[in-house]
Order: sequence, then C-alpha cells, then structure tokens
Amino acid sequence: MPTDLKQAALDYHANPKPGKIAIEITKPTATQRDLSLAYTPGVAEPVRAIQLDRELAYRYTAKGNLVAVITNGTAVLGLGDTGALAGKPVMEGKVVLFKAFAGIDAFDIEVDTHDPDIFIDTVARIASGFGGINLEDIAAPHCFRIERELRERLDIPVFHDDQHGTAVIISAGLINALRIAGKRIEDARIVCLGAGAAGLASMHLLTTLGARREHILMVDRQGVIRADDQHANEYQRIFAAHTDRHTLAEACVGADVFVGVSGPNLLTAEMLSSMAENPIVFALANPDPEIDPSLALATRSDVIMATGRTDYPNQINNVLGFPYIFRGALDVHARSINDAMLTAAVHALADLAHQPVPDSVLKAYGLDALSFGRDYFIPKPFDPRLIDVVPAAIARAAADSGAARTAPGA
Amino acid sequence: MPTDLKQAALDYHANPKPGKIAIEITKPTATQRDLSLAYTPGVAEPVRAIQLDRELAYRYTAKGNLVAVITNGTAVLGLGDTGALAGKPVMEGKVVLFKAFAGIDAFDIEVDTHDPDIFIDTVARIASGFGGINLEDIAAPHCFRIERELRERLDIPVFHDDQHGTAVIISAGLINALRIAGKRIEDARIVCLGAGAAGLASMHLLTTLGARREHILMVDRQGVIRADDQHANEYQRIFAAHTDRHTLAEACVGADVFVGVSGPNLLTAEMLSSMAENPIVFALANPDPEIDPSLALATRSDVIMATGRTDYPNQINNVLGFPYIFRGALDVHARSINDAMLTAAVHALADLAHQPVPDSVLKAYGLDALSFGRDYFIPKPFDPRLIDVVPAAIARAAADSGAARTAPGA
Repeated sequence: MPTDLKQAALDYHANPKPGKIAIEITKPTATQRDLSLAYTPGVAEPVRAIQLDRELAYRYTAKGNLVAVITNGTAVLGLGDTGALAGKPVMEGKVVLFKAFAGIDAFDIEVDTHDPDIFIDTVARIASGFGGINLEDIAAPHCFRIERELRERLDIPVFHDDQHGTAVIISAGLINALRIAGKRIEDARIVCLGAGAAGLASMHLLTTLGARREHILMVDRQGVIRADDQHANEYQRIFAAHTDRHTLAEACVGADVFVGVSGPNLLTAEMLSSMAENPIVFALANPDPEIDPSLALATRSDVIMATGRTDYPNQINNVLGFPYIFRGALDVHARSINDAMLTAAVHALADLAHQPVPDSVLKAYGLDALSFGRDYFIPKPFDPRLIDVVPAAIARAAADSGAARTAPGA
Repeated sequence: MPTDLKQAALDYHANPKPGKIAIEITKPTATQRDLSLAYTPGVAEPVRAIQLDRELAYRYTAKGNLVAVITNGTAVLGLGDTGALAGKPVMEGKVVLFKAFAGIDAFDIEVDTHDPDIFIDTVARIASGFGGINLEDIAAPHCFRIERELRERLDIPVFHDDQHGTAVIISAGLINALRIAGKRIEDARIVCLGAGAAGLASMHLLTTLGARREHILMVDRQGVIRADDQHANEYQRIFAAHTDRHTLAEACVGADVFVGVSGPNLLTAEMLSSMAENPIVFALANPDPEIDPSLALATRSDVIMATGRTDYPNQINNVLGFPYIFRGALDVHARSINDAMLTAAVHALADLAHQPVPDSVLKAYGLDALSFGRDYFIPKPFDPRLIDVVPAAIARAAADSGAARTAPGA
C-alpha cells in the first residue's frame, strides 16, 4: 500500500471523530410525551407484546433490519490473528458497507476467544436481538464448525461472508466466464489454489450449480489434496481427488478453470500455458494476484480473467453480495440463508452482467461503453440496479425454500 | 397506563419503521477512494496500529463513544423476568436516552441466560469493542455479583444503572431535602423500603456521603432486616440492624427519611404521622408511589417529598444521571466508574438545583418561576445545563481518583 494511502487511512479513521459509525435515533424525542412513549411508561407495551409473541420483536424493535458483524479476530484481512479488538476497524468497515449499499443497520461485535465452542456459545446467547449474523474474518477450519453449529442453534440467518459471500461472486463470475469460453460447467475441469474458507465454499457452491466434484482439484501449500492425504482436514477431504497429480503445475495441465484464493505470483506463465483453450483465470489474491494480469495476457491472448483488484476488469468484490443477500433475507424475516438463496444470488448477479449498462454506472467508472464480454462479465460494485434485482431474487428463493417468515413484498 | 397511551406506544415503536434506533455512517463513502480508506486496503493501517497498541482503538474506532446497554431480561421495568428479547424495547429506549441527552452512541445487547456466571463470561468476551458497559434490568441479588466480577475483569466502566444511577439521583435529592429540613446527613435516621438493587446501592452511596449505617433500617416484604435474620442475602446483611423493631410501621417512628423503592401505597398516613418533623419522603414506586403525594400533604404540611413521576415536583429520574456520568467517563477514556465519580455526580446535581433556573427550562415545563425549596430541589431532566456541569465533574473526579486514561478537556 502506498505511504500516502496509509496515512490517509489513519486520518480517515481518526478525524474529525474516531471511527466510522454512530447511532441514530429514528423516532421523535423532543418532548416529555415522546420520551414517555420511547421509554417508561409506554415502552412496557411492546415489552408485553414480545413477551407473548417473540416474533413481534420484528414489529416493535430494530431487530428486523439489524445484522451483527461478528469476529474473533483470527483471520483479519491478510494479517492473520490480530486479536479481536484489532479487527474492529474492519468490522466497522463492514458495517459501513451494509448501510451504504443496502440500508442495513449492522453493528460489530468483537469476541475475545480462540476457543470455537466458547465463541459459538457467546454468539448464540447474544443473537436474539438481531435479524441476522454475519461472521467475519474467522480462521479456517474453525469457521466451518462455528457456522454450522450456529445455523443449527439459531432461527435467524448465519452467514460467513468469507465463505459464502466470496463463493457467490466467484460462482456468478465463473458462470459468465464459462459462457464466454463456450464451455459447460458440468464439463469444466477446475483447479482451486487455496483450501481455506473461500476456496472450499466456492467449490461447494459450484458443485451445487452443476460442477462435478471429480473435476475439481483442490491445491494447498502441500500440493493437490488427494484421497490418500493425511494432512487434509475433514472439510478439505470432501474434495480429495483420486489422482496421480501432486503439484500445482501438474494440476493445471488441461484445466479449464483456475481459481486462486491464495497468494501472489503462484501461477506461472508455464502453468497458464498448459491449461485448456480459453482458460479462465480468477487470480483473487490481494493486493498481488496469483498471476499478474499483464503477464497472463502476454502469455495467452485467449485468457478470460478476473481479479480482486479495482484497477483491472472483472473485480470479484464481496460487496456485490453480502449487502444484497442480507437485504433480501431481512426483507422476509428469513430464518436462514440456504443454498437455494445463494444460488438465486449467483444467477441474479450473473444475469445482470448481460443487461445494458446504465449511463450512471459508465459515468461512475469513467467509461464510454461497457458490454458483456471478456472485459465485463461481473457487475460493477457501484451499479444501482443491484439493490433492485439481487434482494428480490433472494427473497423469492427464501419464500420458495421455506426460509421466509413473511411473504416477499409484504 | 391509559389505553390511548398504550396504543400510542405500540404505534410509536412500529411506525413508520420498526424500532427507535439505526446505524449512521460518519465518514464519506461516495467514491471508490472513500471505500478504499474505510475498508480494504486502507483499513489495514488502523488494524495494525491497534494490534501494536490496544489503546489506539480509542483513536481509530467508535469505541471511545460507545456504551453497551446489556440485560438478561430478568427484571424488566416492573414486569419481572420477561426474557432477554422482550427487554429489547427498553434497552433501545435507553440507547435513545444516551444519544438524546449526552450524544453517546449506545447499543443494546440482550443476553439469553439466567446463569450469572454465563452472563458474566458472555459480557466479558464482547466488551473490548466498547468504551463502557451499562447493565440494565438485571434482578437482584445476581446483579451485585455480576457487576462486581465484571468490574474486576474489565478495563472499562461497568455500571449497573438500576443500582448506581438511581443511587446518585436519590442521594442528590436527599442532600438537598435534608438542607431544607435543616438536618445533617450524619444525624438522619433513614428507612429504606425495598432491599433490591436500587435500595441497597442508594444506602451504600448515602453512607459514603456521611450517613451512618447504624441509622439505616432496610425493610423488605418480611419486615426490617435484622442482624438475626436468616432470609437476608449477603448484600442485605451489610445493612442488618441491631434493633427490636420488626415492622415498617415500627421502623418509621421518629424517622427523618423514608426512601421507597418498592410498591404502591405501602406507606400509610399513620406511618407518616409517626415520622420526625419535616419528614423527607421519597416515594419512588412507579406508576403508583408508596404514598400518594396529596395524601401525604393532607397528612402533614411539613413533608418534603419526591416521587418517580413527571406530574409531581421533584422527580427522581435516572435520566438525570447515566447519560452524564458516562459522558464524563468516556471523555477521559475512564477505566471504571468509582465511588469518587458517583459522589462527584451527586454534588454536581445537588448544586445545580441551587442555581437560578434558565428561561428555557421554565418554558419547557410551562412554569413561570422555579427556585430552590420544597417544590424544587432536584434539577429537571430537560435542563440544558446538566450536560455542562455533570460530565465535567465526573471527568475531574476520574482524573483525581486515577480512573482516567486521558486528562479532562484533552
């Protein structure tokens, strides 16, 4: 990061007041009468109502538009285990994005523990006041069990953005990239470099969308995860391959898709050269991708590429997903965010990239034109149509799959 | 509560949107540059800074102005154990008061447990992101241990408003009432009806201010708490009296002060008649006091009276305390709220009632005049001078007592 950006970021967080978020009162409080409704004695009425019917918390409190952004600080950005409190600026940043992109009132909670069971218990006990839980920056493999158990215990959506948010955007991009490549997802041979939260959730969602598990090779620092591996954890073992390929280079030969959620410059020009025609390369490591886009294009002109960066085409950015996924879930007081809802989000995002781009988007990005193709197969984060199409698709899928408490548009 | 107020309270909470609070973004977010400061990659800088020095959370996050309002729902208003979620409207109401009166960003957390140890652990684990903890509506006697252990474990203020907030306002009122009565606190014989959170904390604070423990009689449903009692808990036993008085009526004979934090109409005209001259009666049960003020005045013209109601003079209202106590504590990044700070709040409030009342206050209450005396010995909740005098007194006391991280006015 450039030094001036570093200082600007510190200044942005410190001035004129510390932090990025505050609490706002949404009802009148000017008179004694107002306060007698907001607090005693009037407030006793909604208390009694909720005591009789817990669902009325959606009617009388902020719960229905409220998402807890919760971390234990064990995998903050690329910085690793910073401790919970040091993760707070990131969590407050997430709160900012929830509000700015989808009008959701989110609030960050930092939980000081490394023990996944204590973390689960803590979150479960403070969850009832929220309409949803967004888990954030929790290290794998604990994150998988934490999410699974909280989903089982709670009757509100529990969503680990580093898993499912990332998986939704990657999948939406891949569906479109495969169309450009003229390939079917059922046939696509996929290499995934990085077998943590993002990689495993993405491969899971791709199989839900039609990808064949036997076509997927997961690769981590120790090479291809194979059926006879001892080092793989239970979540990685689901994707363990029956193969004699051991290295990333061997995995790439003939592959249709490379998804990198790992580190800088791990995909070499030679590996790219060995891939199938119209190779799809999602090099998502930030700030330095698995292969530099200019090197990739110099190596093969037929490459179809996405990165995690704003300064190249096709940015895989989680802000395309979580605000709208939660918006749709909250709009129907959803009990969960299930695979049907994630799949709906994937298709809504993928479809949007095929639509004519509004002038406001062109203007926001200083572009003259933008149409579906190699340089544009994922919507832009500042596209104002996202809030119209994605939440509606999520809400419908929630209703159709039985996850909704209320009807879409109610 | 009148039926129209009940319906108005439900409408107030439900419309136009549910609840009373929302999240507000305090920094610019319009451009990609803004977001690169608020979130990745810029946000990594404050993360690294806090990782090296936890105190920098006060500089780069919302922590320094953030108070968690936390309940387990076991003593919500006068409704008893409603469950944590049903307490949410009250907690959100408290959030509203923190913001409206002192500009503090508070956020409510409902903890689903009846086990005090689990509650303590849960709160301790989520505390680091906050600048202070306001415990609310937690039943006695658990509330005492919960507060004590959290104060020991945390390096931010932990404050149970039902104890200390109430105690501060009662004490400020009593100091002034005793002056009107022409009595010294050291000599005052005090009867406290109600031996829960508010009663015990008030009596403790009064002893700090000079009241003699041997002059205090605590009375609960079973009568005077006496040294040979078996039913008293360890916190009540501190005030157990060596006396042959058993009933409230016996306790009241010759008493200078009656403090009621109990239930309606428990102090009879006969009991009041038996008290010393210029009897001080704080009948704080809501909505129906321990003795109706008109009955009290009809019984004795020399009574000096306060209630918890807005429609009588001298309302003992916690909103006079907690917003300003926390404002002062947060202003110096206090580690705790100690007795010295509470005492400073008592004197600041008591002193304010002696000052000439500004026109804006008279206007807000539709009064022509107001001056110190039997009808006015406690400041009014809408007095704009409170925010000037109380937090400053708290901050000074914090600095003088070693509870402040930063200097007052820094």
